[in-house]
Amino acid sequence: MSVCALFPGTFDPIHYGHIDIAHRAAQLFDEVILAVYDQPLKTLVFPPDVRITLAHQAFKNTPKVNVMGYSGLTVDFCHKVGAQVIVRGLRVFSDFEYEFRMALAWHRLAPDLEVVALITNEEHTFLSSSTVREIASLGGDVSSMVPPHVEAALKERFKELGPSQQVVPTTSLRD
Amino acid sequence: MSVCALFPGTFDPIHYGHIDIAHRAAQLFDEVILAVYDQPLKTLVFPPDVRITLAHQAFKNTPKVNVMGYSGLTVDFCHKVGAQVIVRGLRVFSDFEYEFRMALAWHRLAPDLEVVALITNEEHTFLSSSTVREIASLGGDVSSMVPPHVEAALKERFKELGPSQQVVPTTSLRD
Amino acid sequence: MSVCALFPGTFDPIHYGHIDIAHRAAQLFDEVILAVYDQPLKTLVFPPDVRITLAHQAFKNTPKVNVMGYSGLTVDFCHKVGAQVIVRGLRVFSDFEYEFRMALAWHRLAPDLEVVALITNEEHTFLSSSTVREIASLGGDVSSMVPPHVEAALKERFKELGPSQQVVPTTSLRD
Amino acid sequence: MSVCALFPGTFDPIHYGHIDIAHRAAQLFDEVILAVYDQPLKTLVFPPDVRITLAHQAFKNTPKVNVMGYSGLTVDFCHKVGAQVIVRGLRVFSDFEYEFRMALAWHRLAPDLEVVALITNEEHTFLSSSTVREIASLGGDVSSMVPPHVEAALKERFKELGPSQQVVPTTSLRD
Amino acid sequence: MSVCALFPGTFDPIHYGHIDIAHRAAQLFDEVILAVYDQPLKTLVFPPDVRITLAHQAFKNTPKVNVMGYSGLTVDFCHKVGAQVIVRGLRVFSDFEYEFRMALAWHRLAPDLEVVALITNEEHTFLSSSTVREIASLGGDVSSMVPPHVEAALKERFKELGPSQQVVPTTSLRD
Amino acid sequence: MSVCALFPGTFDPIHYGHIDIAHRAAQLFDEVILAVYDQPLKTLVFPPDVRITLAHQAFKNTPKVNVMGYSGLTVDFCHKVGAQVIVRGLRVFSDFEYEFRMALAWHRLAPDLEVVALITNEEHTFLSSSTVREIASLGGDVSSMVPPHVEAALKERFKELGPSQQVVPTTSLRD
Repeated sequence: MSVCALFPGTFDPIHYGHIDIAHRAAQLFDEVILAVYDQPLKTLVFPPDVRITLAHQAFKNTPKVNVMGYSGLTVDFCHKVGAQVIVRGLRVFSDFEYEFRMALAWHRLAPDLEVVALITNEEHTFLSSSTVREIASLGGDVSSMVPPHVEAALKERFKELGPSQQVVPTTSLRD
Repeated sequence: MSVCALFPGTFDPIHYGHIDIAHRAAQLFDEVILAVYDQPLKTLVFPPDVRITLAHQAFKNTPKVNVMGYSGLTVDFCHKVGAQVIVRGLRVFSDFEYEFRMALAWHRLAPDLEVVALITNEEHTFLSSSTVREIASLGGDVSSMVPPHVEAALKERFKELGPSQQVVPTTSLRD
Repeated sequence: MSVCALFPGTFDPIHYGHIDIAHRAAQLFDEVILAVYDQPLKTLVFPPDVRITLAHQAFKNTPKVNVMGYSGLTVDFCHKVGAQVIVRGLRVFSDFEYEFRMALAWHRLAPDLEVVALITNEEHTFLSSSTVREIASLGGDVSSMVPPHVEAALKERFKELGPSQQVVPTTSLRD
Repeated sequence: MSVCALFPGTFDPIHYGHIDIAHRAAQLFDEVILAVYDQPLKTLVFPPDVRITLAHQAFKNTPKVNVMGYSGLTVDFCHKVGAQVIVRGLRVFSDFEYEFRMALAWHRLAPDLEVVALITNEEHTFLSSSTVREIASLGGDVSSMVPPHVEAALKERFKELGPSQQVVPTTSLRD
Repeated sequence: MSVCALFPGTFDPIHYGHIDIAHRAAQLFDEVILAVYDQPLKTLVFPPDVRITLAHQAFKNTPKVNVMGYSGLTVDFCHKVGAQVIVRGLRVFSDFEYEFRMALAWHRLAPDLEVVALITNEEHTFLSSSTVREIASLGGDVSSMVPPHVEAALKERFKELGPSQQVVPTTSLRD
Repeated sequence: MSVCALFPGTFDPIHYGHIDIAHRAAQLFDEVILAVYDQPLKTLVFPPDVRITLAHQAFKNTPKVNVMGYSGLTVDFCHKVGAQVIVRGLRVFSDFEYEFRMALAWHRLAPDLEVVALITNEEHTFLSSSTVREIASLGGDVSSMVPPHVEAALKERFKELGPSQQVVPTTSLRD
């Protein structure tokens, strides 16, 4: 019995919460594909090739986790690479709601795929790529949230973007 | 006692979940007005007239459900057409939160109106127009989610829009 | 078109939130049956006949709301009295979760019945019979939560029960 | 790589939602142990041996799913039988909350174990053993919720218990 | 012991819910700084100086509440002005989820700061700046939601913006 | 300005999550009263005097935190001891729901009191007295959840109670 699991996302950028989930999945399944949605989108900070490279570096010593780019429907990519399982990370309950609807939609589109939710470590409960982007764009310290090579890439990227193209600080601006 | 119920939304496009709610409302109330917000908005895939036409076709054999366009405040439109009830569909709990706040706001603006929430069929739990738009934009099969005439309109519309104006696939891109 | 709506519960005791929902339902439907589950249960403060009497008094001037006792499955009682609709009140989201599951279960047992959720007035958001029971048992003022005849009944009942059979004050005791 | 997964619970009684989760787990892992908590508890309808027997019959044709009784801490039983994974089913979001806290507690007690959450089929969203017990105790039809042998066992059991020891119908009695 | 509390936000515009929270905080702490994020952002209706002025007028008779503009990370501004506490208002549970994640992120960035959540008055449960903006943009009555000087500013601003730059009425347009 | 804060509960037994909240409150307010509900209740493991003693020992080196027993309504005890604030700890969102309702009820009974919610440290997210009781009753290791003197008291207490009066292991038994 050999099971391949796909862990899809934009990974803009990859953070310790993602890395934790991928390592947990690698303990459970024979192969893990970390699948980076590779379309260029205005709302993202990094272009697809950078997001893939940053993810790749994070798993260079973890042979069971392969990083691949993809586009189109996630379920179609699963079928193409032979993944039987979609892995998702749950942090807090709002994730669950979203993941629940996704899982039901995926099941409608591809009844052969199983969605497996892993629960993140309590120290990563608050982590999301948008939090990382916001804190980094405002010059805050993200060293406890992302690996050093991602931290360096964020610094350089926000220097490039300059203050005029600032990431919207949703953290302070809700309501 | 004759009660008229208004079921407001953008319906971009109408799907089986909406249709289910409208039919349920028609069992309870004397008249149901499916009210399509008819402003052109950049975030929507279909222009107002197409959204109204697609909704209209879905109820051509249901005389108790009338489709109308509207703009301005929903509560003002209720008063204009003589509706005493606003009908809402609940799928999952995040809907509830949103609907709850809406209902309280509507009640403040128009204490004479009653908000009635109907619970969708379990097979439509995951359905939303944004899910339909995303799956259709990526070439996925939406035949179990929308009527055939809506499926055809989606195909044509996404051919028109082309790959450069792709709907953002929020499904795969959260976080 | 004549629609009868059933509003089921234990009503131990009836409070202003229940009364609000019943009056709203009476604006929408031709008849409202407030159905009091009439089994004697140890966890309840009032015996069935008292719960029915207290509810009855609350609607003595509202001819459209009839109070009846029942036992067995709620859906069976709907069929027996010819109700097509089950009315529920939503206060906060945890209600929704519960009601959602109930609605799906009822739908499985009786697909002909429709569940309609009304949203309580914001001033009753926190009200529940258990809160009323707890506050009354500890001698607190419940005059803004229940009608005067219910307040009087609570006082008498807790004098009867005495301090030795105190209601468990879950309010102060969670965790 | 061989992974054994434990699916713990009281299974009072086993229903189609449990059976669905166990079959899904059997697609993902090499062995699935359905672990029935075998202490006699007053709040349960069936004694441990009956709960185990009913579960056993449900998987008699599924060699990968083994039914076992256990007591004590779930994590200790995992270690005893060599399970690396605890499987949980999620139906709606309140499950998630509970499971999330459980997963964090288990992780504290046994960092080597992984908790994997599978999402139930949409048609089982509302199903729980307590719903089954309540409906069966009131004479309702549970044939779409449990296998025939469980339905028969419920009928017999509630005949034994008689009307005086009725299951509390929480369904109708919340608030 | 002298404690200074910071209440951060965009306040676009300030409403009675915000004012309620600030007054409650002023009962608990020695000084309250209402900190207005002062970057110009396209999604906001008012420029920073107007948002600050509208907030300032709301507290002209409350000496303990000082209004200040800020940019950058909220935790850095706390350190700069010597605030030990960040005050947040909770209305409904979706607020909680967001605030919970924020509090954990803030704690990671600045372990010396404490986040204190106050619960809004029940009559403000539904209030948010986005609801105020939407209703005002569609010509609805917001006099029960904001002070008269804010209502006047909203009217003038939406006259300026004209119908072509209408605020997106998310209220009617979800799904 | 001198503010006294009351932190009420059953504390059966006190754990590190409670202790964390009390210490945080002591940073914000001039005095903190940890108020132990001192009625004997069958569902609790420890009698009132033991719960008070265990709490007392936990704060013997924290002069600003005073431990007191109380009965009756929490708001009445606040008035008696001159507390202006009720402190509550939030761990996960289900806490919020409950606390929100409580805060609204307390506000109805005593509009002069303010409810302040503090958010627990992420490492205590899963902690509750019921989890501690269950794990201890089954012989599990609770040394990372409670101080040593509480751990010792739990061991002795469960030896006294014996296997026949076992705490119901809700952890393993939901559904």
